[in-house]
Parts: sequence; C-alpha cells; structure tokens
Amino acid sequence: MATVRGFFTPKTATGRSSLVPAPPWYYSGDLLTVEYRTDPARVAELLPEPLTLAEEDPGAVAIIWADWQSCSGSKEELLDPVRSQYKECFVVVRCAFEGRTFSRCVYIWVDKDFAIARGMHQGYPKKLGSIHQTRPYSYGQAAPRVGEGGTFGATLAAADRRLAQAVVRLREPSETNGFVNGHPMAHNRWLPSIEPGGGLALDELISSAGQSFEGGQAWKGDAEIELFDAPTEELAALRVEEVIGGYYRQVGVVWNGGTLLRSGGSGAE
Amino acid sequence: MATVRGFFTPKTATGRSSLVPAPPWYYSGDLLTVEYRTDPARVAELLPEPLTLAEEDPGAVAIIWADWQSCSGSKEELLDPVRSQYKECFVVVRCAFEGRTFSRCVYIWVDKDFAIARGMHQGYPKKLGSIHQTRPYSYGQAAPRVGEGGTFGATLAAADRRLAQAVVRLREPSETNGFVNGHPMAHNRWLPSIEPGGGLALDELISSAGQSFEGGQAWKGDAEIELFDAPTEELAALRVEEVIGGYYRQVGVVWNGGTLLRSGGSGAE
Amino acid sequence: MATVRGFFTPKTATGRSSLVPAPPWYYSGDLLTVEYRTDPARVAELLPEPLTLAEEDPGAVAIIWADWQSCSGSKEELLDPVRSQYKECFVVVRCAFEGRTFSRCVYIWVDKDFAIARGMHQGYPKKLGSIHQTRPYSYGQAAPRVGEGGTFGATLAAADRRLAQAVVRLREPSETNGFVNGHPMAHNRWLPSIEPGGGLALDELISSAGQSFEGGQAWKGDAEIELFDAPTEELAALRVEEVIGGYYRQVGVVWNGGTLLRSGGSGAE
Amino acid sequence: MATVRGFFTPKTATGRSSLVPAPPWYYSGDLLTVEYRTDPARVAELLPEPLTLAEEDPGAVAIIWADWQSCSGSKEELLDPVRSQYKECFVVVRCAFEGRTFSRCVYIWVDKDFAIARGMHQGYPKKLGSIHQTRPYSYGQAAPRVGEGGTFGATLAAADRRLAQAVVRLREPSETNGFVNGHPMAHNRWLPSIEPGGGLALDELISSAGQSFEGGQAWKGDAEIELFDAPTEELAALRVEEVIGGYYRQVGVVWNGGTLLRSGGSGAE
Repeated sequence: MATVRGFFTPKTATGRSSLVPAPPWYYSGDLLTVEYRTDPARVAELLPEPLTLAEEDPGAVAIIWADWQSCSGSKEELLDPVRSQYKECFVVVRCAFEGRTFSRCVYIWVDKDFAIARGMHQGYPKKLGSIHQTRPYSYGQAAPRVGEGGTFGATLAAADRRLAQAVVRLREPSETNGFVNGHPMAHNRWLPSIEPGGGLALDELISSAGQSFEGGQAWKGDAEIELFDAPTEELAALRVEEVIGGYYRQVGVVWNGGTLLRSGGSGAE
Repeated sequence: MATVRGFFTPKTATGRSSLVPAPPWYYSGDLLTVEYRTDPARVAELLPEPLTLAEEDPGAVAIIWADWQSCSGSKEELLDPVRSQYKECFVVVRCAFEGRTFSRCVYIWVDKDFAIARGMHQGYPKKLGSIHQTRPYSYGQAAPRVGEGGTFGATLAAADRRLAQAVVRLREPSETNGFVNGHPMAHNRWLPSIEPGGGLALDELISSAGQSFEGGQAWKGDAEIELFDAPTEELAALRVEEVIGGYYRQVGVVWNGGTLLRSGGSGAE
Repeated sequence: MATVRGFFTPKTATGRSSLVPAPPWYYSGDLLTVEYRTDPARVAELLPEPLTLAEEDPGAVAIIWADWQSCSGSKEELLDPVRSQYKECFVVVRCAFEGRTFSRCVYIWVDKDFAIARGMHQGYPKKLGSIHQTRPYSYGQAAPRVGEGGTFGATLAAADRRLAQAVVRLREPSETNGFVNGHPMAHNRWLPSIEPGGGLALDELISSAGQSFEGGQAWKGDAEIELFDAPTEELAALRVEEVIGGYYRQVGVVWNGGTLLRSGGSGAE
Repeated sequence: MATVRGFFTPKTATGRSSLVPAPPWYYSGDLLTVEYRTDPARVAELLPEPLTLAEEDPGAVAIIWADWQSCSGSKEELLDPVRSQYKECFVVVRCAFEGRTFSRCVYIWVDKDFAIARGMHQGYPKKLGSIHQTRPYSYGQAAPRVGEGGTFGATLAAADRRLAQAVVRLREPSETNGFVNGHPMAHNRWLPSIEPGGGLALDELISSAGQSFEGGQAWKGDAEIELFDAPTEELAALRVEEVIGGYYRQVGVVWNGGTLLRSGGSGAE
C-alpha cells in the first residue's frame, strides 16, 4: 500500500503532479480597485451565519482587478510563465465575527486552473472568467503611467457575457488602496457530502491574510463602474448606489496559510 | 444572519450563482478509449492506503477522451451551450478495496470550470487542458463514420505542452467499451487544512457510479498512443508496454451522487 | 535566390508551414440557421458598388452557426483534430450583380486561425469569436435529436461581449435549409496599399460556391433570435423585424476555388 | 449603390466594424530577444527572389517575444483592454535587396485577431499561438526586475504543441537590443488568385519601419533557447548553432505605413 503525496490533487508518489505546490505562495501584481456603496441588505444576504454586517459603512463593496505573476518557493514557475501568470477580478465586502471586522470575497473569477485550486484551499469561490485591465508601461503612447491623469480600463466576462466594466482616472497619491479589502479575510470552505441529502462534508469558517506585504505608492481617483446581469451570476444584484473611488497600486504579497475559526454551523444549505 | 444556498460556491441567497447546480447531472457524449498495459508498480504507487492493486491484469490502464454535452435537471444549460459543452481526457486504472474491484481516475483534464467543480465533488483530480478528438459526422469527407474503418485521432495538452496523442482505427463491433473503466469509481476527496502543518481537513474515500446508462453499439479496433513528459505531469510514467485496443462508443449517463466508503486514514501526505 | 512555396503564408522551401494547405478543402458539419427580415436599407448600405439589393425579399438575412470539421486533400488534419475542428457564426444577405442573384457574407466569426486564412482567400470578413451551438447526440438526456421537437440554442460572443443568441425548435422536415444562403457567394477581396493614402492594393469582386455538396434531411421550425450591440460591431444594426424561421441540417461540402468577377472599382473607401 | 468604409474588413457604411482601424498604430511593450546563429542555407531558403542573404553574419536569427498593449489614434482600445493587449513571438532574419540590408520576419505567432489583420497589411506571416514571457514587477518575490541578475523565461506554443522556450539572464546594460531586428523590414504581401491555378492575385515586396520609437535602457545577458518540431511548423529547421545573446528592452513604437518596393516577380509558387 502506497503513500501518495502532493499538496493538492492529483496526488502521486512524488507529489510533482499536484495542481499547486504547497504554500508559501508568492505574488507580484497590479491591483485596480473600484469601491462603491450598495444596499446593505444585498451584502447581508451573502453573509452566512454567524457572520454579520460590518458596523461602519456596511454596504461598501470593492471590485478589484488583479494582474498577477505568482510562484511557489522553488520559483520555477517564473521561468515557465504560463504556469505563473493569471488575471483575476474579485468582489469584496466586509463582515463581523466575534467582534472583529473581516473582509470577505463573495465572487471571484480567474483564468488559470492553479488559481482555482488555491481558491479551493483559501475559500475563494472561484469561477473561470476572461479578465482584462489596462497595463501601465513606461514608454510609448499605448499605455497610461501610474500617476496623475493615468486612466485605466478593466473588464470582466464569463460564459461569453460581459459582467463588469470600469474606468479609473488617477488624480493623486493616496494613503490607502481603499478600505474594503483591508482586513483579514473570513471565508467558508464548503463541500457537499457525496451522499445525496447528506448535507455538508466540509463546513469551515477560516481566516487568512498575507504573511507579508510590500507595495508601491497607492494612487486614487475617479471611477465609473457598470455591472451586467447574467443567468448564473448575481454580481449585478450588488447595485452601484454611490461610487466611493478608484485606486491603483502595485504590490507584492506572500500567503502562507490561515486559521480555522469555526467548524460546522455555517447556516449554508 | 442569513442562510446562503447553492450546491457549490459561490453560495448566495438564491443559489443561482453556484458554479454547478445540484445533481442529478445528465451527460450525452462520445467516448474514445485506448487501453494498454503498464508496469503494475506504476499503478500501485498511485493507490493510497488502503487501496491495493486489482487482482487480474493490475497494470491495465484506460485513457479516455470524451466529447460531452451535459446539463442539470432544468436542462436550461442546453440552450446556452457554452454552459453545457466540454471535453475531457481521463486516465483510469483499477484497484481493490475490501475485496471489491473499483475503477479509479488518477489523472484528468477538462476545459470548463463547471467540470472542475463537479470533479471536486466526485473526487476526480481535474486540471484544465486542451482536449480534442475527431468527431464522426454522417456527411462529407472530413469525418469518419462510427463503423468499420472509421479512424479517430485524439490529443491532450496542458500548460502549452502536448501530453498525449492517440489514433484508433475501428475494426468491428464490440461487446464492451473496454474493461478498465467498467467498475464503480473509488476516489479520494482531499483538502488540506488551512493551518500550515495541519494535515488534511477533508480525507474521504468515496465511491460512485452512473445512476443510469444508455449507449449505442461499441466498436473496437487497433490503437496507437504516445505519452509525453512535462515538468508538472506524470502521465508519461504510466509507460505504454503493450496496447490492448481502442474503443468508440456514444453514450448517455446520469450521475446522482455516491457513497462514503471511509473517512480518514487515506495515507496521503 | 530561392523559390518559396505554400498556398498561404508563411511560405518556405517546402510549403509545409503554410497556415492552410491548397484547396480543395473538405468540410463536414452541422448548420443551425435563423432567417429573418430587416430593413432593406440596412442591407443596401452593406453592398458596395456595383452590387445592388436582390429583387425579391431584399431585407432577408440568415444567421448561420456551423460546427465544422475540415481538412485538406491529405486528410492528415483529421487525426490531429485541433487542426481540423472549428466553429463559426456568419451573417448572409443576398445581392444582385449583372442580373444574377448572389448570397454574400457580411459578418463572420470563427475560432481558429486556419479558418481566418481561408476567409482571406475566399473573401469572408472573418474575426475571432466564441461560438457555441447545441449538439445533437443519439443517446442520453443532455442533447436534442435532429427531429420533431429537437430544440437547439446558439450563441456568439467576441471581445468578451455576447453579440447574438438564438433558439430553434424543429417542427418538421423541410425541402430547403433556408433560401438566403442558397446562391453562389459574391465577395470582395480587399487589402489596403502599404502606402498611406494609397487606396487599395487588392480590390476584387469574386464569386465561389461549393464544388460539391451532400446533406441529410433538412428540418425547419420556430426560431427566436436576439442581437446585441458592441463598440466595434454592427450586427445589431441588422435589426430583427420579422423572423422567417429556423433550420437544421447536417452537411458535407467541398470547396475548390472560385471566379474573379471584376477587379477594381468596388467603391470601397 | 453604396460606398462601404473601414480600413480592413468587414467594411460597412460607418467603418466601425473594421477588424482594425487605420494607422497610425501605437504600441507600448516589453521585448525579450534571443539572438543566435543557424546555418545560412536555412535562412537563404526562406528568402524569395530577389532577396539575398545579408553580407555580414548571414545566419543570424532573432527570436523575439513581445508583450504588447496597442491602440489606434482614438486610443479608445486602451479603456477596453481586451481590444488592446496581445502577445507575440516572432522570428527575424536579415536579407539584402538592391544593396540595402533589411530585417525580415519569417515566422510569427500572435494571440488576437486584430494583430492578425495588421499582419496581413504589414506582410507578417501570422498564425495564432499561445505566447508567454516572464513579466518584471517592481514589488514582491514573484518577478524579476529589469536589471542585473533579472531572469526571464519565454515560451511559444501553437496547435497544442510547444514550439520554443527560452531563458534570458540579464548581466549588464547594452547599447543595443540586438542587431538582427534593427533594419527596416522587407516583407512580401501575397494572396493567391481565387481561380485555381491562377497564380498570385497580390504579389508585393514592401518595406516598413516604425515611424517613431522610444525605449528604456536595453539590457543584455546570457540566453538558452530550445526549438521543437511540429507537423506544420519549420521553426526548428532554423537550428541553434551558436547563441549570440539575450536582450530585454521596454519600448514605445508608432507604425504608420510603408513603401512598395516591387510588385510581382517574387518567385513564390
């Protein structure tokens, strides 16, 4: 009888086939963020028991586009960049648990399988999407610079439908890159029982945050955002009532696991 | 405090956003199968405790290409076919558990996210791939027919590398569509703890099989298959020592859950 | 000094690298057609001099989804199906030239590069798109049959926006597969001069038709179709005023060149 | 009778549908270059009459990966980045015509249709491919910096096969970004007659170069490159006999047309 290895599946004798190597995971990327307010009731209905609305500004939403390069500790993925580059668009709200405020990703789309696997581990509810954001370049007329007047577009599509598009025009340096995605994440990890009617086989509330972080100067400015409906998506239900602002920041992050907050009792059906 | 719904994530108040609706799941598709023998030691090292090699023909392997259309009970996906069509290539061996013989998928690639989600539930270790198989058509010179002399090609790539390619030439009707994938599946469902060094948060051995099945006449014939190495794949380690044969069959399947065989103790690191 | 070979570019000493081999080209495929009437003025403005509106039913439009497998005379592409399968959605109107009625493709999207190359040769104004149509299968509940009650969906997207979606419900056998795409094609082949302000370097009106054709029983039925606007597309300007019907047919086609009708004077700017 | 407009097809009353707007075209991008020597006979056989081998270093080849953002004069594509971003890998040799030295692209792969259309105009023999190159970022451990020790990988695949992979380790600033791609381009624009056996309908030798150029500091270093064979590709025939070096440079380019050198007589079959 054998021992199989690998952080994720497929597990083999060597572990080499795992869809993603074990953490720590390293990320370098550009974040384009639009923050806005929606009806807090729309946020509340996405927070499973025992999570509750954040006390301050409970209807605040951040939609974040990220243009990532990532790798494991071996860094070998960096020299085979089809295995290290991906794009994502994720939607973050805040919530409260046992008196603390958390950020929480309620929707997220990525364009690579290794990013989906990481999401299964981290509790990000990932789908595949087609994600694009304007890139800054230092030369030529086909790119903004990260600075005053720099204007960036961003789009999200899934299943051949456009779901969101945004434009951010940078105005001035900012002390923050927004506030909605600024807390540790409170996520659920759920998997249904293989047996019909068997409830949940995995039902965890977990928390994680970056182990370390570095970043360039954040910039803020004006933002426009449009959300579009689709048969299998509810992003547009988080209707934009008031745009708070747009942000741009280049960052480096290390992620290395989290904490189990609670097992069972999530109130998910 | 809210109740969130949905068979899979993301869970919402309505359940509409779930990456995949609840079973039963319905499939119509074409299966191109190549069976061959490899060194049984290569199979054994992929079978985690307490699974053991099948008693008869323990080195038998099936590589199966499938061109699927699938839907949930609502069948709404069929009218938005980007949500119902996908292709997959999967690698099956056999194993024994408590005196019974099972089939087991050790590697699998698909090209849609809803198929990945189903795999998380069913214990298929799915990655994204680019999968192609020749289609039969009834008219024109650019397609084989399912019948004597019909010749089909099939290829698999992932991360921009070709991993497998096969050619099957049909010779005669067959009583079976091969024997390796003919048993209920014994799969593991694993997820690591969110806490570093915390072992497995989910560690199940489950079994499932189609709830119902229909199919056309199976055909068999000669087959050639080549496997190629890649930095993050070990398919080529299942070296082809002797080709058993090739098969083609059009099928319809319903899948509706399985059975938990054992929780914990899988011997996976 | 060398002679370079190949039907298309890149041309090399052997011709093996050509994006597409020389005709004849062989096709097997399924066609899902929706015919409707739009304002004839919208058709007229797409017909460059000297083409004029067809005399009968000049506002008739066919939108056709095709799920193709194709190959050259060597048929080698059939065993490497990534090189033979593609999908397309094309929009056909009719026009008149020197007293004859022609069909004319005014918009078309495909999902492979070899199909784009063929379009450059044949005068189809191809773009890349994401194209899906429900497939009939003979087994299982996840597919319609080609026959009474068979219901097929079809969608088109490009640049991450959905451009069209249709549903066709088959009712009865049909003597035709529609009438709009039933004539030889009259297409322009245009390429601008490399020199700014230099007009057209290539300006041809050509005609072509299938060299041979076979097909199964055509079916007709009810159809719904929706067109969506996009910044770089004008398909939606061919507004649906009255649906004529929907059709489904499985076909085999051979294409082997056409005829130059006129060189220069197309009235294109 | 109508006048139809648009720089490229599809041409319409407004010109809005054209796959690519008229030049000038603006580009911002990162170039990763590997230069090496192959047997000059392999270069010579790719040069159609009346082009001849360059006098100096006639077997020099540059393979260049480019991560582009591009737009037309309106710059509207920059805010809808799915329409402005693309990647390419192209292979450049040098040649002589009427006593002058030109660069010439003999193979090129891109990942967007608008880039293919530009190539039809500019004489680049484009195919679709999957192209990746490591990106530099200023923050985090998942990216090199453009500077000493910065190490970049690059890969090319088409039709589900890997065709090339390279690694470049930067060592020091460089006065040039290589020499093979440093001349005006001499390209052919060819299209076969629509009539079988009719020869070429378009047969031009044209030249073009960037209208303006800006760039950052170029860096040079050591390079490794591997080329792989494929049934429809001949890149590997340009066998690597001696690596010259690797280069990295961030650039901005404007392209605005070229010059017709000669019409007809290209010696292409």
